[in-house]
Amino acid sequence: MSKSELIKNMQLISGKKNVLFADDEICTYSTDSTNITNLREKADVIVFPQNTQQVSKIMQYAFSTITPVIARAAGTNLCGACIPKHGGIILDFSRMNKIIEINKNNLYCIVEPGVVVEDLQNAVEKENLFYPPDPSNLKVSMIGGSIGLSSGGPHTFKYGSTKDFIIDLEVVTADGTIMHTGSPCSKDVTGYNLTQLFVGSEGTLGIVTRATIRLIPKPEAKRTMLAYFDSLEDTSTTVNEIISNLITPSVIDLLDKNTLQTIESFYPSGLLTDKEAALLIEIDGFKANLDNQYKKIIEICEKNHSAFIQKAETTEESNKIWISRRSSFGATAKLAPNVVTEDVVVPRENIVPLVKGIRAICDKYNLKTCIMGHIGDGNIHPNIALDLRNQDELNNFKKAKTELFDLALSLNGRLSGEHGIGCEKSYYIDKAIDATALNYMKSLKKVFDPKNILNPGKIF
Amino acid sequence: MSKSELIKNMQLISGKKNVLFADDEICTYSTDSTNITNLREKADVIVFPQNTQQVSKIMQYAFSTITPVIARAAGTNLCGACIPKHGGIILDFSRMNKIIEINKNNLYCIVEPGVVVEDLQNAVEKENLFYPPDPSNLKVSMIGGSIGLSSGGPHTFKYGSTKDFIIDLEVVTADGTIMHTGSPCSKDVTGYNLTQLFVGSEGTLGIVTRATIRLIPKPEAKRTMLAYFDSLEDTSTTVNEIISNLITPSVIDLLDKNTLQTIESFYPSGLLTDKEAALLIEIDGFKANLDNQYKKIIEICEKNHSAFIQKAETTEESNKIWISRRSSFGATAKLAPNVVTEDVVVPRENIVPLVKGIRAICDKYNLKTCIMGHIGDGNIHPNIALDLRNQDELNNFKKAKTELFDLALSLNGRLSGEHGIGCEKSYYIDKAIDATALNYMKSLKKVFDPKNILNPGKIF
Repeated sequence: MSKSELIKNMQLISGKKNVLFADDEICTYSTDSTNITNLREKADVIVFPQNTQQVSKIMQYAFSTITPVIARAAGTNLCGACIPKHGGIILDFSRMNKIIEINKNNLYCIVEPGVVVEDLQNAVEKENLFYPPDPSNLKVSMIGGSIGLSSGGPHTFKYGSTKDFIIDLEVVTADGTIMHTGSPCSKDVTGYNLTQLFVGSEGTLGIVTRATIRLIPKPEAKRTMLAYFDSLEDTSTTVNEIISNLITPSVIDLLDKNTLQTIESFYPSGLLTDKEAALLIEIDGFKANLDNQYKKIIEICEKNHSAFIQKAETTEESNKIWISRRSSFGATAKLAPNVVTEDVVVPRENIVPLVKGIRAICDKYNLKTCIMGHIGDGNIHPNIALDLRNQDELNNFKKAKTELFDLALSLNGRLSGEHGIGCEKSYYIDKAIDATALNYMKSLKKVFDPKNILNPGKIF
Repeated sequence: MSKSELIKNMQLISGKKNVLFADDEICTYSTDSTNITNLREKADVIVFPQNTQQVSKIMQYAFSTITPVIARAAGTNLCGACIPKHGGIILDFSRMNKIIEINKNNLYCIVEPGVVVEDLQNAVEKENLFYPPDPSNLKVSMIGGSIGLSSGGPHTFKYGSTKDFIIDLEVVTADGTIMHTGSPCSKDVTGYNLTQLFVGSEGTLGIVTRATIRLIPKPEAKRTMLAYFDSLEDTSTTVNEIISNLITPSVIDLLDKNTLQTIESFYPSGLLTDKEAALLIEIDGFKANLDNQYKKIIEICEKNHSAFIQKAETTEESNKIWISRRSSFGATAKLAPNVVTEDVVVPRENIVPLVKGIRAICDKYNLKTCIMGHIGDGNIHPNIALDLRNQDELNNFKKAKTELFDLALSLNGRLSGEHGIGCEKSYYIDKAIDATALNYMKSLKKVFDPKNILNPGKIF
């Protein structure tokens, strides 16, 4: 099959205006938000499917011609999940972006993969419903990507990540068949749970074209605070004691000293820069129910020697804390030409050795690192600022990355809590997963993708 | 392989005292709590494994001799999941019943399959933690069975079912290899989600020998009420309005008129028997937070013409309501020699046509039926009282059952919300599941169980 024939066929299926193939366009799609190792690969053609039937026809064509197909939503992932490692067709789902239904009585919505996560949240919140997963890029990231990577976010500690909300997927299989994996019933044990096999599978088992998403009633109110500590140990003990007191914060995020200093130096908002760490704590629920919990949390923070607690008494004050928190990536990006956000997870009791270990590794390799993350889930993101054009820095980063994974594993942890494996962590997967389980995963891949055309070169 | 050789080998692996094979013992294990169609099948031997290594050796032997292996915990399932349809070895896990660890800081526990669900709940509640799934047989049912069937219960509406709490399984595969499917990190996207493939797979993909279970902080208090209504429509509207008012009850169960009458006639406690339906509603959380919600729910019930609200002001009054609710099966069992509990699920907006349709079907076939269920989840259990020795009644029941499934499907529902498929619903599975999805499920079965020795004849 020649490239021109491939392009012609895609144009026949999706229409000329929905097909890109010029050099600059192919270049734009040669990477995603990852960009860790300057990895770029050229796809042959970019298609914007308009509906499931077109995706089915594209897959039939790809299956018969053994052409790789990479599903891409906003391309905001951080593990190289959308990089077309073996060329082929990129399906850009940004034009399949309809919210098909928001069903208040059944507590679900049905959406296409190109719906922006924040747009979905806003739409369901108008109906007093709530979709909690909130990856930090939610203003641009799309639900198709969230499903591909089982994205999390600060709210995961209380509410769960994307996987906990997906109850049915419409999937186009490798050979172009359209199937449903589940049902609109959130409680359903009719056969194996195919839905959860697809969530987080990074487009390697089939192409998701529609999703049914469980929703919950929207919390009436929330309260926010930022509590500073002089030691990581006190920070960690505070988290444990809040939970021991039966409180499940909707958010409990960690910002380390470097993160606080970096944010404050580029986006000054009065953050304390001499403290070892801060906890961003938010509780939600009925307005009348929050005061007692808020007071109790403050009491626990103070008992554990919190140096200062910034209490948000108004929405504006709460927004101010959140704006600082969300500036951490942007601020780190001002330290060097590139920022790499890593993502490891450990059982929460190992959070202190994890954070200290990450610092030690980054110091050893002379890498500037701002550490933050979802401490309640044991999920830590080191934001590493570096110049990827500098071969020494790049080599140091690669070494540090592997040591970071070694560290997480030694602490009974895993390679990724919410960003996925893609092609950036796949080199390490055989160390991270039970060998038998990994072999089964590879067998499952063969069942769903016998010709290895679905996002080849990812995860394994 | 002769039966005596099989028995000898099992004795060598697990010790003589852990192996049963006498006729009466084999007979005891020929069925489970289902007993719908008087189905009984004889296993060749019953083994009580003591540890994972023994299970591994047993599976190696079974794999080499192509002997069926049926994992059984308490045998309380209601779909024939433990019936040894093709003979072989029954692994009774009741002697692998240790709680290995309850980890307060990491919010998980590690257990063996033979731990009784209520024992697990009590043990974690001593640590101020909470394991919410509460199948009605929790006083005897074991966590291994809960995992096999992804059991639910009244608390599923707010908290989710078993699948939402299992984060890692130790599994012995068909050939005797020991593997882990997940990790102790509740947030983990390192490879495909094998854990959720095993939960609810009824022992057809591997033998679960240990589970890591996510826990949550225990709610401080709860409030209970029983609200009566003169119409199903009002009952259903009440549920929707409670949720629209942002309240997520920890329990919202339906009892229909027949259920109320049957409970009251055998276990009198003052239930009103002239009302069309009642809602058992429970809310939980911090004590100080419950009053407002309780008042709001009462207001909503009254607005929707609730005929009477029995408000539990004390733990005793709450227990009284729960004892009535839990007597529904026992009371129905007094109506006839047998009771069959069915289990269908629909999107909640279809609950009224479902309940009315079930009544019409049961009337048509002259079957006494008490309808109850988890209305918040759209999950309904008709308890059908009949004499299975009466061939006419049995035939009528079989026809009614198929019409019940037809009805659920016509209402966009599914065959089972929390009881599973086993061999009692497998005849219907090809109508209930997307054909492509079903074919993939069969392919997955072949990947994990190439010789079809793991609980053969179930689900498909």
